[in-house]
This record gives sequence, structure tokens and C-alpha cells, in this order.
Amino acid sequence: MNKLTVVGIGPGAYELMTIKAAETLRNCDVIVGYTVYVDLVKEHFPGKEFLTTPMKKEVERCRLAFEEAGKGKNVAMICSGDAGVYGMSGLILEIGQEFPEVAVEIVSGVTAAIGGASVLGAPLIHDFAVISLSDLLTPWEKIEKRLSAAAEADLSVVLYNPSSKKRKDYLKKACEIMLAWKDPNTVCGTVVNIGREGEQASLYTLAELKDTPVDMFTTVFVGNSQTKVIDGKMVTPRGYII
Amino acid sequence: MNKLTVVGIGPGAYELMTIKAAETLRNCDVIVGYTVYVDLVKEHFPGKEFLTTPMKKEVERCRLAFEEAGKGKNVAMICSGDAGVYGMSGLILEIGQEFPEVAVEIVSGVTAAIGGASVLGAPLIHDFAVISLSDLLTPWEKIEKRLSAAAEADLSVVLYNPSSKKRKDYLKKACEIMLAWKDPNTVCGTVVNIGREGEQASLYTLAELKDTPVDMFTTVFVGNSQTKVIDGKMVTPRGYII
Repeated sequence: MNKLTVVGIGPGAYELMTIKAAETLRNCDVIVGYTVYVDLVKEHFPGKEFLTTPMKKEVERCRLAFEEAGKGKNVAMICSGDAGVYGMSGLILEIGQEFPEVAVEIVSGVTAAIGGASVLGAPLIHDFAVISLSDLLTPWEKIEKRLSAAAEADLSVVLYNPSSKKRKDYLKKACEIMLAWKDPNTVCGTVVNIGREGEQASLYTLAELKDTPVDMFTTVFVGNSQTKVIDGKMVTPRGYII
Repeated sequence: MNKLTVVGIGPGAYELMTIKAAETLRNCDVIVGYTVYVDLVKEHFPGKEFLTTPMKKEVERCRLAFEEAGKGKNVAMICSGDAGVYGMSGLILEIGQEFPEVAVEIVSGVTAAIGGASVLGAPLIHDFAVISLSDLLTPWEKIEKRLSAAAEADLSVVLYNPSSKKRKDYLKKACEIMLAWKDPNTVCGTVVNIGREGEQASLYTLAELKDTPVDMFTTVFVGNSQTKVIDGKMVTPRGYII
């Protein structure tokens, strides 16, 4: 049967890919993806056919992957992080209804919440929420409600897509919403370029984070009421008595 | 400097480990962990020294790892999934204050939420919360509040530790709390033994899940209001127009 595998390549560094992800890319004929991610893996998988589509062409990219698989090629569609967290695996399964002759498999990867947490320390040891600040496909009111609920329930929060050219003040707005429930001194952290060149972690209070400009390559972590700084690391305790 | 690396080994299968995790285990002298996880990796890393402590001896296990590193050995402490999600990296950083001569590094892994989602389909494509039902270290009232807030905000929810011998009715209680906000027909899924022998995925409605017995090797996924079943897979759409 024709085969399409959706592969999360992790944060970016080759060695943060799972062994299965690397094997899948080594064994496939064609690698399909967003231009930036294809550039990240290209050097490690020489001799493959690479097909790219730009951002905002996700539906076209998925159809392209199925069409290539329909030709009998073994196709891998790559996503950064994990394909199942704001990634392409959902859209692939939806569009897959049009291509019943293609078998779909999904290979897990390290999403930014997991990869970034390791860089910062251990901010997600206890219950947490993952929320995207992008209102491209989600009404902002829904995002606000989720931020507020997560903050009220004292969850740690990971923010994906905290900023873009058109959404420069969204992180500020998100912090203001969470400040209704979370202490201004709540420990927060950001990681830029997780697992890539220029990786950088920074710690803030929630009050400071509110006025910190971030870019689209940043993942933001907001602690719970117990989160603390230990030797420069952001640590959320689970409750063990030491 | 003496070195202790905390390594998430992923759900269990060797190929779901990151390349860096496998390299770390290949290059270390001693592998420390909970007995069950050490048994999962043992065959892949022959010639290593293996040290284990049973469940509920987490503090002792961390001290043991530091003491071995203090002797000049290159030590890896393994956790299932990711070390930063209900794992040992937080406790290691806390106890690390007592062992300033040991450098700690953390290597990310595929946590059960990510690994299980790939098996079920794509349940976590949009915003979600990760909540543990274990009240061993967390007051049940706090867990209830988090379940209720996540359900009210229409987050998908992943439940870790949904059951144990002493907590047989906790999943039922959790479903009842979420049913105050989520439709009884909300698509839910469970995955047993993710990435291990006997892996099994099942789909339910939230009303059905309430009366489904699960064990401690099960990870539970509760969809949001948009989650649907496509060809037997649990899929949460992100909002793309196909």
C-alpha cells in the first residue's frame, strides 16, 4: 500500500529527533515540508527528493504529500517539534479521507514545550496547559478564556506562537489576563531557538514578562504558584519531601 | 567536572528514544532508575552498571545518582517518557543544591501525551491541559479544580496516572467533573502500553469513559468540543478550511 508518514523532527537539532524519525527519513523517497524545516534536515538526509510549500499553504502541502504517495513513492511529511501539537497530523488525517489508497503513520517528536522545559530546568513537572496565542484560526475570546481558566486553576502554562509581526502585543495581553489570578512574582521563562544555533534561555517574573518583547521563535513558560528558581533554573516541584 | 544526565527514554520502545538519549546511555558508566524502566533499556546498553530503587523511593534514587556521579562516574538517571513531565528532573535540580560538584544536564524524551496522541490519531492538535489524577503528592481538591477549569475552557485534556489499586474510581470522578462542562458525546481515547508490547488504543464517548475501568499503564485523552472520529482515529481540528 502507498505510504505517508508524518514525522515530528523535534526542536531542530538532529540529535533531538527520535531514532524512529531519523530511520523514517532515511528510508523514504520524498520529504515534504515547510521550507524552514526542510532546510533543517536536508544535510542529514542526502539523496532525497525535497518538496516544500511556504507558510499558510498547509492544505496544499498535505495534498501534495498524498499525491506523491499516490504515485507509489514512500513519502515523509515533516513538522517541527511533534506533528500532533499544532502540527500537520490532524490535517493529514482529515485530508486522508480523500486518499483511501494511502496508509498514514505518525511518528512522535519532542515538541517545544518538552524541549524548552529541559533547557530552562524543570518547569512542567506538575500539571500544565499548552496554549497558542495565534488567533489566525482561533477566536481571541477563546484564547482569553483558556488563559484565564489555566491561571485560575494554578496550572503552569506554555505559550506557543507568542508573537508575530501582526500580534506584537499578544504576550502582554496574555500576561495581563493571567495576572488576574497569578502573582506578579510568578517565575516565568522563555527559550529562543530551542535545540538550534542561538539557543537562549531567560528567566523573568510574570510582571517582567508582560513587558518583554519576544519573537516567533520563542516559547514562553509561566510557572505555577510553587515554581521557583534554583541555581538559575526554573523548577516546579512535584511535592516530594527532601 | 562530575556529570549526571537526566534522560527521558520515551514511552518504552528503543526507537522512540531521541538520538541524544541513546548516545547518552551508550556513553555513560552507570544507569540509575526505577526497576521497570531499567528493565526496558537494559538489553540495548550492555556492559553498563545498573542501579535501581523501587517506586516511592524517588528521593533516595536521586541521592544515589548524585553519589555515584560524585565518585567520578558518568551517570545517567532514566525516566519513562520525558524527565520533565511528572519525572525526576525537578527533584534532581532540587537535590542538586547539595551536590554543587556535579553538573546536571537534561535530555528530552517523548512523554505519554505526545506518544499516545500519535497512536490515537491527532487529539492534541489544539490547546490542551495535562493533569495527573494521582493525589499522592497533590490535594484532590486542586486536581478537581484543574479538571473543571480545563473542561470549562474547552481544552483537550490528557490524564496521567488515571488509576491505581487505591484509586480505582478516580477516572470516574474526573469524568463526572468534566461532564459538568463537556458534552457526554465528547470524543475520548485511551492508550495502554504506549510504544511497548501490547500497545492498544480505544475510543469512547466521555459518558462511556466514565464507566470504563483503566489501569496504571493507561493514558487517557479527552477531546475538545471539535474533536471527531475519522476512520477510527481521534482528531482535533485546528481550524483549517479544507
